Amino acid sequence: MIIVMSSEATEAQLEAVVKRVKEQGLDVNISRGTERTLIGAIGDERKLDQELLEALPGVEQALHILKPYKIVAREWHKQDTVIDIKGVPLGGRQVQIISGPCSVETREQMDLSAAAVKAAGCRLMRGGAFKPRTSPYSFQGAGVEGLDMFRKAADKHGLPIVTELMDARQLDTFLEYGVEVIQIGTRNMQNFDLLKEVGRVNVPVILKRGMSATISEWLMAAEYIAAGGNHNIIFCERGIRTFETYYRNVLDVTAIPVLKKETHLPVIVDPSHAGGKAWMVPALSRAAIAAGADGLLVEMHPNPCEAWCDADQALNPQELIKLMGELRGIAQVIGREIL
Amino acid sequence: MIIVMSSEATEAQLEAVVKRVKEQGLDVNISRGTERTLIGAIGDERKLDQELLEALPGVEQALHILKPYKIVAREWHKQDTVIDIKGVPLGGRQVQIISGPCSVETREQMDLSAAAVKAAGCRLMRGGAFKPRTSPYSFQGAGVEGLDMFRKAADKHGLPIVTELMDARQLDTFLEYGVEVIQIGTRNMQNFDLLKEVGRVNVPVILKRGMSATISEWLMAAEYIAAGGNHNIIFCERGIRTFETYYRNVLDVTAIPVLKKETHLPVIVDPSHAGGKAWMVPALSRAAIAAGADGLLVEMHPNPCEAWCDADQALNPQELIKLMGELRGIAQVIGREIL
Amino acid sequence: MIIVMSSEATEAQLEAVVKRVKEQGLDVNISRGTERTLIGAIGDERKLDQELLEALPGVEQALHILKPYKIVAREWHKQDTVIDIKGVPLGGRQVQIISGPCSVETREQMDLSAAAVKAAGCRLMRGGAFKPRTSPYSFQGAGVEGLDMFRKAADKHGLPIVTELMDARQLDTFLEYGVEVIQIGTRNMQNFDLLKEVGRVNVPVILKRGMSATISEWLMAAEYIAAGGNHNIIFCERGIRTFETYYRNVLDVTAIPVLKKETHLPVIVDPSHAGGKAWMVPALSRAAIAAGADGLLVEMHPNPCEAWCDADQALNPQELIKLMGELRGIAQVIGREIL
Amino acid sequence: MIIVMSSEATEAQLEAVVKRVKEQGLDVNISRGTERTLIGAIGDERKLDQELLEALPGVEQALHILKPYKIVAREWHKQDTVIDIKGVPLGGRQVQIISGPCSVETREQMDLSAAAVKAAGCRLMRGGAFKPRTSPYSFQGAGVEGLDMFRKAADKHGLPIVTELMDARQLDTFLEYGVEVIQIGTRNMQNFDLLKEVGRVNVPVILKRGMSATISEWLMAAEYIAAGGNHNIIFCERGIRTFETYYRNVLDVTAIPVLKKETHLPVIVDPSHAGGKAWMVPALSRAAIAAGADGLLVEMHPNPCEAWCDADQALNPQELIKLMGELRGIAQVIGREIL
Repeated sequence: MIIVMSSEATEAQLEAVVKRVKEQGLDVNISRGTERTLIGAIGDERKLDQELLEALPGVEQALHILKPYKIVAREWHKQDTVIDIKGVPLGGRQVQIISGPCSVETREQMDLSAAAVKAAGCRLMRGGAFKPRTSPYSFQGAGVEGLDMFRKAADKHGLPIVTELMDARQLDTFLEYGVEVIQIGTRNMQNFDLLKEVGRVNVPVILKRGMSATISEWLMAAEYIAAGGNHNIIFCERGIRTFETYYRNVLDVTAIPVLKKETHLPVIVDPSHAGGKAWMVPALSRAAIAAGADGLLVEMHPNPCEAWCDADQALNPQELIKLMGELRGIAQVIGREIL
Repeated sequence: MIIVMSSEATEAQLEAVVKRVKEQGLDVNISRGTERTLIGAIGDERKLDQELLEALPGVEQALHILKPYKIVAREWHKQDTVIDIKGVPLGGRQVQIISGPCSVETREQMDLSAAAVKAAGCRLMRGGAFKPRTSPYSFQGAGVEGLDMFRKAADKHGLPIVTELMDARQLDTFLEYGVEVIQIGTRNMQNFDLLKEVGRVNVPVILKRGMSATISEWLMAAEYIAAGGNHNIIFCERGIRTFETYYRNVLDVTAIPVLKKETHLPVIVDPSHAGGKAWMVPALSRAAIAAGADGLLVEMHPNPCEAWCDADQALNPQELIKLMGELRGIAQVIGREIL
Repeated sequence: MIIVMSSEATEAQLEAVVKRVKEQGLDVNISRGTERTLIGAIGDERKLDQELLEALPGVEQALHILKPYKIVAREWHKQDTVIDIKGVPLGGRQVQIISGPCSVETREQMDLSAAAVKAAGCRLMRGGAFKPRTSPYSFQGAGVEGLDMFRKAADKHGLPIVTELMDARQLDTFLEYGVEVIQIGTRNMQNFDLLKEVGRVNVPVILKRGMSATISEWLMAAEYIAAGGNHNIIFCERGIRTFETYYRNVLDVTAIPVLKKETHLPVIVDPSHAGGKAWMVPALSRAAIAAGADGLLVEMHPNPCEAWCDADQALNPQELIKLMGELRGIAQVIGREIL
Repeated sequence: MIIVMSSEATEAQLEAVVKRVKEQGLDVNISRGTERTLIGAIGDERKLDQELLEALPGVEQALHILKPYKIVAREWHKQDTVIDIKGVPLGGRQVQIISGPCSVETREQMDLSAAAVKAAGCRLMRGGAFKPRTSPYSFQGAGVEGLDMFRKAADKHGLPIVTELMDARQLDTFLEYGVEVIQIGTRNMQNFDLLKEVGRVNVPVILKRGMSATISEWLMAAEYIAAGGNHNIIFCERGIRTFETYYRNVLDVTAIPVLKKETHLPVIVDPSHAGGKAWMVPALSRAAIAAGADGLLVEMHPNPCEAWCDADQALNPQELIKLMGELRGIAQVIGREIL
């Protein structure tokens, strides 16, 4: 950590800061510049509290030099982590397209969906039984019964399932139903109690980016899960909130190469929630794979015009098949593959 | 709701949309313009699903005309709601300054804090026992023991308490300790399961605005609480996330008159978390009261340089007393008062 | 336009609004809903002033139904516009990669750059003679002498040039030097006097998106140029400003399919300024082409570590060659080509 | 400047960086930490190019310690600058409310406006003759004839005038008409050629903040003017662009205390363009003065419903008089005054 003293700081103030740093077991290097004096703290800077130091008299600012995340950082784990989801690898050379409807509606809809997911060549299936809705008066998901419909439809077609957990009190039910991948939604990215709970189980977790979370906050949210012992974490970029109003969110494609540099964990993209319209999904999906994403979470519905939720953003089965073909071509160009 | 048909929509597509609207029990008014045909849905538009309609062939867009919130809307409840917190009114002519430390640390610190809050003339006290921290390696709050320290210190000085609830599983403990006002933090504004839980109890709730929540989403989050039966909701603006990096958040002072227009519920402001620096707090506090806020949530610590959390944003007791004097003057100018 | 009357509007207020609309030569359709009365204005709504209508007593809001842009809109011109730049087509099946250094430095640097651009297979060259710099103390560009160096180096290798115009008073000089494509930078996207000037000449214009311009504002800025008679406009997405601080800007890849839908004009992307770091450029370039961009504006410098400006975002010649190979593959997958 | 070497940097890379820094005439301090080696550059860091250093092999990041602005910085000029506008002081104890219509329409409208401005007790008048409009098809201002109308109406009532300059080619006309304060609009905050031109004249300049300009960029834009010799600069906060859609912009009230700390120059606020609605103006105006602004730029129209531009954001003369009374009270509470 670098502590910048203000141009009017006294020698006594400088000494008080040095004393504080040394009390935490770190050493210091003092650099007297022409306009400012800097204190370099040598040792584990994670022990220093930036805000506390900035509250000391004479301090202009305290700057972190090291990244605050550790277990999830590539600096400490050079190799790409490949997560095994019931035999389906995520994070390696193979790119995985996870597809399915926004929400679980009926047994028939789930069966048709699973068949279409399988037919398109996808190896993992998504679907929501518990739905976070902006309005308390909107359909809130089919709940445990939905989980049961999802499980049965997916099993029939041999597909591991991905579904969202919104409340720690539902975790046992998720384990009972053998959910293969637990999704933490964008609104819960910093629901720290929930992160701690999924950190205690041994199930892969998709951690969606908060609507306006920085890369650093997102990595720290993952660090909450990792610190509990669960290192099977998959980042999912799903669009960020900006000033633009033409589309729901702005897919942050830059986050893909940046995360691949900062962390060894897999990075996938949700092009459906990002744009919010089915006609945008193919372009965004291609962009994500071209930028190096390890997979996608794409909404598909056997009959989008009848969907109970987010109807205008789901592909239909034919559109999914066409998209898969394009993605395969792009994966190949960059040395990867989609089975 | 207004449904705009695209310039190339066919008559059959128009009829299909009309049929859908009528199936929900609404009537229609068709307006054929020179470039577009519009369908006006007459009746309770909350029954119509915008996304579903936009997914129908030939539809360009569907526009809501009515606000989606109801219980919290001023349109349905013209008078200002005044919430009674153990005899302290919030939301009427009197402005309330709620003060106290960021986090509960020790019995001594809480006792000094409560004494200082009281001495400054504040009638409600804040303090965090459970702390949402960006890093899993930071101090996470003193927990239930902290709640106990807070309760005792506040009782000694006759101050009702405000403290943050992060997990539905802790609600019973909060009730046991007789927490007078439950705070829902910015990261949990759309933790819908938590909102539903506090909607079931009869304790006033401060609902902080999500870091990048729109006014409409915020009102809908309150509607979740209200729909459960608890109408004692207090909105708290605490700064929003923008591109600016000089300060932590941008205090959205415009939200104050806007909320006062849209809802009958009280609106307070947290100037401490907005700016993130103690030296910004007086200016932001004065601005909030001048703009019409019903109260403030101001961090104060008996010895800011020793605070365990957010050290650089707490006022010291003397600064709080000085600020109270200025706020009293401003309240008076706009026809309100601070006791 | 739809005008929504407030729930408390009187009949007289309704009539006053209707009168206003009719004075502008439009007809009205009145729809009396259960909670609001709506007035639909039938005719050319561009004649109505939204703000003026919203200022009338009893009006809650006025909503535009039509897009405010016309010449640039695909609605009025279905076919893709292909712009001919001295024989190089932009906007059709062929994708164009425009490359070159951030700024013109020396004759030698420009000659090496032009040779490298040519060698990589690019058919157009970029370079800045007049540079918009945040600080008045930074290098402001080589000016007219730079233009001369650029012209000569490009001519030697048969490359049409793209360079930024910052001041209307320099336009004659640009015409004298035969600049083939005039670039309007992000900071000048709404410099309306400059837009009007380039609207009067017959030279293709690259219009970069303002740092926080909405799609609609961007299209309207192009409409300023088009209204002057110059329809050779190329949109260039270059990243938008958000809360994220890890990278300079967020490349808005969604803007590509959206613009392709809204306008018939070509859309290119500047991956270099978006990310701000050379190591991000390949991923962003691939994403842009995969999403359907008609071209790129990529910074390349013969010796990046010696560049006078934006040194850390330029590719070196070898990196550009490698990137061109990947882009060719992606273009092919989506039915396009790079020569 | 602090240069952070990556954890894998070699000794030779370190030496190459040190050589670069020394070539610019600065000295170095090397601090070898447990995980990173840091190089502190001692001397005038403005000579170092951050991007160039970050492009060197082995460098992780380069951090500026000093602020890049100088003439406008309070660090170099401790006292508040008071600008004299034909005898009206701006920037001292007295707070100035500058009022008038959005745009100059007719001689009668300007005469009524000037009379109302005077009657409300304001000492400076605003009005736009050249208007930056999003659409090329909207009213673009009355131009030079408008300037003439404005001049005459203001002179009749003894009011110095504030009006916007959009194009450097109009500067001579502005000087001819004796414009007392030149306004640079939000869209031109980084129109560097225009800034340089107004830096050469001896007329006070109001520099509006760019829609998404950071505090630092804004100060640097002012530095452009100051570097030309004109130090009579007034900052004007007018709302920033965010994700919120309920109101046009978010008034950034935090910018007021921050600018007062960073610069010695006056800071005013435009509450009219910030909110975009007349009913928000009183609350925002009070907040701005309470936060410490040196003045306001408030739109007032003798008959808002007939205004040719921004009709729904202008106060009427009576509303302005009422507002002035509240602002006088607030100014007094914080030790300032409005005559």
